[in-house]
Amino acid sequence: MASSFGEKLRVSIFGESHGNGIGALIEGLPAGESINFERLMRFMERRQGGRNALSTARKEPDIPEFVSGIFEDKTTGFPVCIRIANTNQRSGDYKNLALKPRPSHADYSAYIKWGGHADMRGGGHFSGRLTAPVCAVGGIAKQILERRGIHVGAHLSSVGTIKDDAFPMMPDSALFDAIAQKMFPVISDEKGEQMQQEILAAREALDSVGGTIECMILGLPAGLGDPMFDGIENRLAKVLFGIPAVKAVSFGDGFALSEMRGSQANDPFCTDSGGNIVTKTNRNGGILGGITTGMPVRFTVGIKPTPSIAQPQQTVSLPDGTDTTLEIKGRHDPCIAQRAVPVIEAAAALTALDVLLDDCGKI
Amino acid sequence: MASSFGEKLRVSIFGESHGNGIGALIEGLPAGESINFERLMRFMERRQGGRNALSTARKEPDIPEFVSGIFEDKTTGFPVCIRIANTNQRSGDYKNLALKPRPSHADYSAYIKWGGHADMRGGGHFSGRLTAPVCAVGGIAKQILERRGIHVGAHLSSVGTIKDDAFPMMPDSALFDAIAQKMFPVISDEKGEQMQQEILAAREALDSVGGTIECMILGLPAGLGDPMFDGIENRLAKVLFGIPAVKAVSFGDGFALSEMRGSQANDPFCTDSGGNIVTKTNRNGGILGGITTGMPVRFTVGIKPTPSIAQPQQTVSLPDGTDTTLEIKGRHDPCIAQRAVPVIEAAAALTALDVLLDDCGKI
Amino acid sequence: MASSFGEKLRVSIFGESHGNGIGALIEGLPAGESINFERLMRFMERRQGGRNALSTARKEPDIPEFVSGIFEDKTTGFPVCIRIANTNQRSGDYKNLALKPRPSHADYSAYIKWGGHADMRGGGHFSGRLTAPVCAVGGIAKQILERRGIHVGAHLSSVGTIKDDAFPMMPDSALFDAIAQKMFPVISDEKGEQMQQEILAAREALDSVGGTIECMILGLPAGLGDPMFDGIENRLAKVLFGIPAVKAVSFGDGFALSEMRGSQANDPFCTDSGGNIVTKTNRNGGILGGITTGMPVRFTVGIKPTPSIAQPQQTVSLPDGTDTTLEIKGRHDPCIAQRAVPVIEAAAALTALDVLLDDCGKI
Amino acid sequence: MASSFGEKLRVSIFGESHGNGIGALIEGLPAGESINFERLMRFMERRQGGRNALSTARKEPDIPEFVSGIFEDKTTGFPVCIRIANTNQRSGDYKNLALKPRPSHADYSAYIKWGGHADMRGGGHFSGRLTAPVCAVGGIAKQILERRGIHVGAHLSSVGTIKDDAFPMMPDSALFDAIAQKMFPVISDEKGEQMQQEILAAREALDSVGGTIECMILGLPAGLGDPMFDGIENRLAKVLFGIPAVKAVSFGDGFALSEMRGSQANDPFCTDSGGNIVTKTNRNGGILGGITTGMPVRFTVGIKPTPSIAQPQQTVSLPDGTDTTLEIKGRHDPCIAQRAVPVIEAAAALTALDVLLDDCGKI
Repeated sequence: MASSFGEKLRVSIFGESHGNGIGALIEGLPAGESINFERLMRFMERRQGGRNALSTARKEPDIPEFVSGIFEDKTTGFPVCIRIANTNQRSGDYKNLALKPRPSHADYSAYIKWGGHADMRGGGHFSGRLTAPVCAVGGIAKQILERRGIHVGAHLSSVGTIKDDAFPMMPDSALFDAIAQKMFPVISDEKGEQMQQEILAAREALDSVGGTIECMILGLPAGLGDPMFDGIENRLAKVLFGIPAVKAVSFGDGFALSEMRGSQANDPFCTDSGGNIVTKTNRNGGILGGITTGMPVRFTVGIKPTPSIAQPQQTVSLPDGTDTTLEIKGRHDPCIAQRAVPVIEAAAALTALDVLLDDCGKI
Repeated sequence: MASSFGEKLRVSIFGESHGNGIGALIEGLPAGESINFERLMRFMERRQGGRNALSTARKEPDIPEFVSGIFEDKTTGFPVCIRIANTNQRSGDYKNLALKPRPSHADYSAYIKWGGHADMRGGGHFSGRLTAPVCAVGGIAKQILERRGIHVGAHLSSVGTIKDDAFPMMPDSALFDAIAQKMFPVISDEKGEQMQQEILAAREALDSVGGTIECMILGLPAGLGDPMFDGIENRLAKVLFGIPAVKAVSFGDGFALSEMRGSQANDPFCTDSGGNIVTKTNRNGGILGGITTGMPVRFTVGIKPTPSIAQPQQTVSLPDGTDTTLEIKGRHDPCIAQRAVPVIEAAAALTALDVLLDDCGKI
Repeated sequence: MASSFGEKLRVSIFGESHGNGIGALIEGLPAGESINFERLMRFMERRQGGRNALSTARKEPDIPEFVSGIFEDKTTGFPVCIRIANTNQRSGDYKNLALKPRPSHADYSAYIKWGGHADMRGGGHFSGRLTAPVCAVGGIAKQILERRGIHVGAHLSSVGTIKDDAFPMMPDSALFDAIAQKMFPVISDEKGEQMQQEILAAREALDSVGGTIECMILGLPAGLGDPMFDGIENRLAKVLFGIPAVKAVSFGDGFALSEMRGSQANDPFCTDSGGNIVTKTNRNGGILGGITTGMPVRFTVGIKPTPSIAQPQQTVSLPDGTDTTLEIKGRHDPCIAQRAVPVIEAAAALTALDVLLDDCGKI
Repeated sequence: MASSFGEKLRVSIFGESHGNGIGALIEGLPAGESINFERLMRFMERRQGGRNALSTARKEPDIPEFVSGIFEDKTTGFPVCIRIANTNQRSGDYKNLALKPRPSHADYSAYIKWGGHADMRGGGHFSGRLTAPVCAVGGIAKQILERRGIHVGAHLSSVGTIKDDAFPMMPDSALFDAIAQKMFPVISDEKGEQMQQEILAAREALDSVGGTIECMILGLPAGLGDPMFDGIENRLAKVLFGIPAVKAVSFGDGFALSEMRGSQANDPFCTDSGGNIVTKTNRNGGILGGITTGMPVRFTVGIKPTPSIAQPQQTVSLPDGTDTTLEIKGRHDPCIAQRAVPVIEAAAALTALDVLLDDCGKI
């Protein structure tokens, strides 16, 4: 099913950018887990725009309303439905675009698929706004995981060609907290400053710019996941490619492994000072054969530049296909990668919790 | 389920490298499709080793036996079970390794997961040998697709740091056929020569080397796939990460998009000479919002170097974790990427056929 | 997933009797289907209580709010979320029962499963109230089916030992409409009168009574469904046993077939006056090998008596298990079977639509 | 997927009556479970024909060959593929029937669905022969369950109108063993004698007769299963309706509950001599709200008479539909219900094991 993922923890996302509301349904959450709503709000705020000059001026409050599955601030074991109202949409901005598909957006493929019935105002169900409910449920998953010593963190690892420092091989979760509290989620604030300049430069050029996000999951035990098509990599990739603008996913050193010799790429096993079996390096990103090794799980996603740019663009009129020009007005982030950081964390947390629940007795 | 994938076309892979046999079960194939067994055998031979100095000396005949679902050389609509006998295993080669996990292999994570019950001789269910049944079913899918004008092709796009030419934006399927007939599946034979030198150099150094594979699907109509978590990208990635040694998957220009401005990355819509709506460039790889645009679907996978290398490697003894050294004997490819080319095609064909069947009336 | 069903049309039900709200999420509805909200409301009213002396006094308005997936009264192809507010709950009625499991209810099994975290006020997620969203989505499915000449109808075929007339072998859909408009959904009003007396007698005895419902689907083409575990019978049964109090499901003549000889039970094929291949009888309920024959699909469900009765009942105190007595106060139907009639129709319509969507090109 | 079932324990059945072979693929079996092959063979023999005058003369040896997933007589945790050769088919018997659909068989619906491509010789994939692999995998599940104190037993509870004694409320598993060793699987041999007379009478009349099977699962803990559509009843029904000729499934007292008052149908909770919470009666069959209560799970299936009878029957010629007469030759059981007893046990065991594996930490 299109807008759902997960085996034991099933997450379904619904809503359109300019409809009544958006939200998520989560089935399979364990019962009796308390939810700290204030922390959840803080996590969700990390993806919201309008906080600085780098992002869109649209300010939705994004307050999750719990329709079901929560009683006295705890999960009941029943399906949790979360609803977020749409309060700030301005459909007029998009009306004239309806039959001029925006390049790099889903407008054209959606038009072909649903014959024009899809409500594509503001991107419809494809809008980046749909990542708000992903964060709502992902924030709950993070709380449940953290209670068990499992921490998920991410940073904006590049904007354009400017790269942040990489995560250390064995980071402390305090590093994740520190990044989460920054307005601009990077490890090196110096590099972050350069990235912000890059974003502002793109905006001034009526353009946008892409980026990458590096994410880690700490504390997963070894032996999680299944071989072949249901490994950690497969499951994470399935969810990550569901986040708008993600066009590449790699684990460990990713494509760089393809350039290495085996003697460089292999992670030798050894015993650490605490007597645990670990690997000396972690080029495989904590996953071998799709199954966790006990080392941190590490992956990187590539995010394309915001497709909506203020420059005139070439497109066609639908349905006949006459060549025409398009000028997109409205509010758009010159770089969506920075706002996607908590979304990637949410996707990682939901997948990690699903895998744990799927693996009998591991939670 | 671990070793299965697909929605309407469900493929399950079974078997271990040194067990009785390996095979695949396919549910959901349309009825009445004729199978050309000779062509299927030729396709399967492309992934087999032992053809030249670049690959392992192990020569399994890999003849698929049809247990069910085929009657008078046509599909019946019932589940198709394919079995391939294991005839050439030499378990002795691996016996002494059982409790010394090989770096970068699934040995350790499998040991933790199944407590030593997994039959990991020769890599067990994680062995590259399991890609033979993937090719058997993928070869059938290719025949069904080709009958409908849909063609899947791939080439070894790099070995180490040496890169083949890229696919043209709109290749002819004859190019795919030409590559498929080469002993070394590249576009530029000159680059291919350099790659082969690189592989031989790795082998002489008792080492291995990684590579990348670029793959395309021609002829898919626009409007295929589903939004969010069940798009073409999500489905392909789920299958591709199930192929041993794949550590990165990207669509269109992939990570390079993250370094671009929107004005470079966006693919403008226009009308071609035949009056069809196309895009001028195809940096998004024929997929927007998870849904096909009608342009060729294009993706690249990164494959790590063969983990089995002849050099001594550091590891631990299980279960106690004492540091020790490992020397892997036996037959191993210095570069598995070259043999993975048809496997990637098989994965792409199976996913494309599944998506077509899933989209009512599209096949 | 517990509260979900369907392959191509995925329905998920959420909410608890005394929580904020209840609702349903439907993924996979075809795009461009107009919804007649007034007809939907009339369908939903058929399951509501408080209409006569035979049912509970609880009167919820049950107005479905469309959160997503509908634009200008038509389906968009995106997930449809429907929410129904809970406005009339009186939790006080149930409070003292929390640790005294009600016989024949899910209280005890839910207590064991979720360790007391489940919000079981008013039956929680197991409440008959959760059939309201089933009717909301089922009513939409009915409209989509009727537009294609497929009609679903049901009647209360028995209460206690009093039986209504059976459906004719080939009913007209006008019969379904006629039953739907009755306050008491039977074919024979004379038998219906006796049934109502039986229900009133049960109520006067501070007791309840069970019943059966016969349901038919007209207009399904032959050749729908899949063999073995995904036939029409399997899919219908999976959904029907999800309706509270259903304890038996049978197709065609059901258990009566077990008492017959083959020469009686077999339905001979013949050609009708219009030249269509039909069967002379329809003892198999329009399904052979799990696949439709083109004859009306016919099944019967058995519904147990309302577990909540006003008589004192023996139970235990949790968690220690001391024997105690329970008196259930509050509002309860002396026979839930009469209100379940539209719910069974909803389940049948949703399953039929799912099967049609699943069968490429059949809708 | 049609021929598959199960969530964590996924069973797929393949093969046709007159093809190369039949078999099953099981994914998700726990690792390290030893298989007693002799006991498995004895279990499978219970469903085989040719043992007495009451069943078909076709004698297939039905020896399961383990292609994968078993190493040194233990499960490895990898998918288990079981293959059973077809050695005794006589296609000639069926050839002339191909275009005359047999009443009450899947011939006609399969013809419409697959346009004549389905290999329906001997019933094809719909043949009762496909229950052999169900028993093979079910027999393995039984061994795994018995090791944990969970026992599954069934008996032929009726043939025509003659009824066996019912199971006691709390049977000992020794009763199951005793029935399993009988040539005719009933509790009361006196009733069994009458049933056998009924079957012989049907055969002499060139006819067949139906029956019912009562099945129980002992030892399942309380709290297993999920609410609404994934309860024990839903899951069992989905599998049971996949067994050829099953037309009705009921839990506990089933349809009889529909005739009762609540005061009769409700099972009062109490504490047994060992201090366990139990119910005084078990009219609900050990399941409330889809979830186990800890009481024995009990259900009954209704099986229609063998559709293949020796009498001439009315049918049509395909594809034109001309009325014609059909005489079925070949070997057929006058009552398939007796041979279905172990098949029902197999289905129950596989479902019970799946539910246990699905419920984290319960196995």
